[in-house]
Amino acid sequence: MITLMYQANIKVTLKKTVADPQGLTIKHALDSLGYKDIDSVRAGKFFIINLKSSDKAKAEQETKEMCEKLLVNPVIEEYSFEIKEIK
Amino acid sequence: MITLMYQANIKVTLKKTVADPQGLTIKHALDSLGYKDIDSVRAGKFFIINLKSSDKAKAEQETKEMCEKLLVNPVIEEYSFEIKEIK
Repeated sequence: MITLMYQANIKVTLKKTVADPQGLTIKHALDSLGYKDIDSVRAGKFFIINLKSSDKAKAEQETKEMCEKLLVNPVIEEYSFEIKEIK
Repeated sequence: MITLMYQANIKVTLKKTVADPQGLTIKHALDSLGYKDIDSVRAGKFFIINLKSSDKAKAEQETKEMCEKLLVNPVIEEYSFEIKEIK
């Protein structure tokens, strides 16, 4: 079986309805630096996972599972990811 | 002057040469959960900034400045961003 290497780029953000004190703090800091045109700042997490898999569909399924089991708190967070084959 | 609203999606990651203990911990946790095909995990930050600007080039310039002045530590981190117009 040929094993390919995939890279998953995962973005995790707080749900829109959840308050984001870190984002607010950054917004205020940017305001102090003179950036007055900022409407909102939301802070989140970003993960790059390199994984071996026999095909892309399987890599996607595995990434979805890892997000739901470990990386994302579904009560307050949402996520999206992109997967590409790498050498 | 017409003011448009732009959204910047900013990814901040540790440089490849910098050790990432958080990523390693996540890799080990995934391993414990039975995901044995993981090659590497890198943890980073993700910011969504909505800003008003008169045009896209100006919004890009402003986002670049905000990254370099506040969001990114250029000694150990690197960043990339995408900007799109939103309603």
